[in-house]
Amino acid sequence: MRGDLSEVRRNGIFVKGEGENFRVKKVHAYNSTNEIGPCDLVLIAVKATSNAEIVDLIPPLLHEKTMLLTLQNGLGNEEFFAKHFGPERALGGLCFIAVDRHSKVEVERYAYGDVILGKFGRAAQARTHEVAAEFSQAGIKCRITDNLALERWRKLIWNIPFNGLSILAGSVDTGTIIADENLRELTLALMTEVIMAANRCGYPLSAEAWRPHIERSEKMTGYKPSTLQDWENGKSLEIEAIWGEPLRRGIAAGAQMPRTEMVYILLDTMAARRKSK
Amino acid sequence: MRGDLSEVRRNGIFVKGEGENFRVKKVHAYNSTNEIGPCDLVLIAVKATSNAEIVDLIPPLLHEKTMLLTLQNGLGNEEFFAKHFGPERALGGLCFIAVDRHSKVEVERYAYGDVILGKFGRAAQARTHEVAAEFSQAGIKCRITDNLALERWRKLIWNIPFNGLSILAGSVDTGTIIADENLRELTLALMTEVIMAANRCGYPLSAEAWRPHIERSEKMTGYKPSTLQDWENGKSLEIEAIWGEPLRRGIAAGAQMPRTEMVYILLDTMAARRKSK
Repeated sequence: MRGDLSEVRRNGIFVKGEGENFRVKKVHAYNSTNEIGPCDLVLIAVKATSNAEIVDLIPPLLHEKTMLLTLQNGLGNEEFFAKHFGPERALGGLCFIAVDRHSKVEVERYAYGDVILGKFGRAAQARTHEVAAEFSQAGIKCRITDNLALERWRKLIWNIPFNGLSILAGSVDTGTIIADENLRELTLALMTEVIMAANRCGYPLSAEAWRPHIERSEKMTGYKPSTLQDWENGKSLEIEAIWGEPLRRGIAAGAQMPRTEMVYILLDTMAARRKSK
Repeated sequence: MRGDLSEVRRNGIFVKGEGENFRVKKVHAYNSTNEIGPCDLVLIAVKATSNAEIVDLIPPLLHEKTMLLTLQNGLGNEEFFAKHFGPERALGGLCFIAVDRHSKVEVERYAYGDVILGKFGRAAQARTHEVAAEFSQAGIKCRITDNLALERWRKLIWNIPFNGLSILAGSVDTGTIIADENLRELTLALMTEVIMAANRCGYPLSAEAWRPHIERSEKMTGYKPSTLQDWENGKSLEIEAIWGEPLRRGIAAGAQMPRTEMVYILLDTMAARRKSK
């Protein structure tokens, strides 16, 4: 931790939502990975835009069998850590959770909280199962996939439209997108582009794979996607992981993605202009 | 005139730009069309979003041969006035001008200023030529078209991308759009959609019809399209005339317009949300 460290050490972390209301009193927080030393498992939960910065922070955490589990959004993250620290260490996890951080020490969870775990580039191995068992023992609903990249694409069916349109339509939440006939149509068109691109890339998603995403969102009124929260708080956006990389892979495989491309270009321009101000 | 009337009567109107710098001292301004009475020619220069409001203002201006010339943007305006006052009265004009209104009495012209005139639904008639002659005598560069609707589509090649992207990319001017590789590509893709839609609707535009638009814009650095000016000033946008109507006509004729549709939906949502605030 950087700026939040002393407050978290003093107060712990408060968690609320869905009937929960508890305080983690003693948080094991550090401002240097040297202080932590070698671990069996490193969870990577920073934004993908910080990947380049954390490369130097990881070596002190590694012993021979340390696994790196990225819980980040989008495509390209497992590849990044595999490249720097070896593919045998790389695990990926998809988090299905609606959560807000209200202050340095306060977190609210609105819905879900389950995780899908997988091994980078191949089926789940013994270590993947061990990590999943740890999650389950800690009370986190967790299942394993033998095709992590397929699940990454499946999650993008939701992230590409909702995270993008929530910003581009002028700060709207998921409930607004679902309720507006035109935005809903546009969401479906974007979802179809993602499904077709995944198929072209060799990840078979059914033409109906958008349906559970829409049904889930219909129950989840009024949630602001993480990217919209970041945008409203002046933070950087995971534009390359969520839009840039899927777009490049889809187009390279011959997919048509005009709407995804437009979301990417508009967000990228808005973010670049904000940075230059 | 409404709110600006007394100031314009007191001060006239100041015009500057491109070597010009003059004051129209005595402006014939009125706050009621009853005061004006029947005219030979009515220029309609309000925004298309005000069309419904001005229907009742027009009758006092009409004699048997009064012509109505709409100088508005987009599609559907001649049709509107033809429906209410007869197709024989309806003329349309396309204004190629880059202009800013700095205050109630001050106008700056950055470039151009020429007009293309045509008759609604048919080739130019004697009255069209008479009106064009009046414009020319007044020092306004003016030419006649025998296919007004074709020229409307040709102008949309510029308006659909530039007016839309200037808002959606986060308030950027034409120079920024032209200079950014991605935004420029997106502009060309939108231009191609418009050209294809026009062709489908029976208005033959060459596949290269985007070229003069881009060349013109390359010379015109840093201009804010009228729609962006309106957006920044909290005014209503001509969304139906510029995007909605061309989109509906194009799609009805079998054209593919995914990017145009997306611009339309996003602008429409942003404008509706602003209004509801």
